[in-house]
Amino acid sequence: MAKEPLLLTRYIRDIPDWPKKGILFRDITPLLADPQAFPAAVEALCAPFQKAGVQYVAGVEARGFIFGAAVAARLQAGFVPIRKKGKLPWQTESASYDLEYGTDSIEIHRDAVPRGAKVLLVDDLLATGGTMQAACRLMEKVDAEVVGIACVIELTDLKGRARLAPHKIHVLISY
Amino acid sequence: MAKEPLLLTRYIRDIPDWPKKGILFRDITPLLADPQAFPAAVEALCAPFQKAGVQYVAGVEARGFIFGAAVAARLQAGFVPIRKKGKLPWQTESASYDLEYGTDSIEIHRDAVPRGAKVLLVDDLLATGGTMQAACRLMEKVDAEVVGIACVIELTDLKGRARLAPHKIHVLISY
Repeated sequence: MAKEPLLLTRYIRDIPDWPKKGILFRDITPLLADPQAFPAAVEALCAPFQKAGVQYVAGVEARGFIFGAAVAARLQAGFVPIRKKGKLPWQTESASYDLEYGTDSIEIHRDAVPRGAKVLLVDDLLATGGTMQAACRLMEKVDAEVVGIACVIELTDLKGRARLAPHKIHVLISY
Repeated sequence: MAKEPLLLTRYIRDIPDWPKKGILFRDITPLLADPQAFPAAVEALCAPFQKAGVQYVAGVEARGFIFGAAVAARLQAGFVPIRKKGKLPWQTESASYDLEYGTDSIEIHRDAVPRGAKVLLVDDLLATGGTMQAACRLMEKVDAEVVGIACVIELTDLKGRARLAPHKIHVLISY
């Protein structure tokens, strides 16, 4: 595509004190909105998995739907939405994860993928890894094989990567 | 692609009494999960807009992110997330729409697109058209031009199409 690789970090906007004081939020909307950067990021997320036989790409509501769906279409794979509790209309499996105070849970349709399906998990952000770990448990519950985890941004200080071992993790930008 | 066009309706699952008694919910997750049907639906959503000069595709949280992002990547356009109130981290414009009881609102970043940008609005479902009408108002607020509206499913009884005139509306499946 472009002769020099795009510096994707240029399309991330830092927002201090959001969603609350002391947090520096990495806003991906300028990256999404850029007609060169968005397809380039989708392509880069796919790159290590082009020959991995990915049959399904799963993304977690809501921002995970954006890159997940685009990656699925690019890999000619199906897309599986993992949703917040109570949003999916059919029978579900559920997995909980810790919040700062309390827990929440995410769900997948029981028939989302056939047994043994090769699934790539996609999200915009890898922080503590709690949500992604719950997503991996959902994949176990439906007997799918996680072939990898692809995220746009990793916040390395939060050590999410360690929680997700031994899965193959691919990120585009590390802070 | 396939020699005979895929019958996309075969991938829609009817769920009676969801989210509440008396509603027949059209579940798109089997369509999303199918490695032939999902890319075919994305392709079909794009088809009338291939030469429309679409610069941005906007989708409404959360299911609108799925098809919106895949269509954006396919059209080599940027993707603009329209989110529920309070979810976007920067300065926003807001538009409200009616619920059965009360109102809710959706938001867009003020700098989401440049003035005069050509935007395609994408969602999974066109029902009463209330949310999509609010999305059109958001586009007016940021001085964008809506080149069309593309939805996977239209529930024709609910007459959403009439509310969205004179915009060009493209749907794949009508009930």
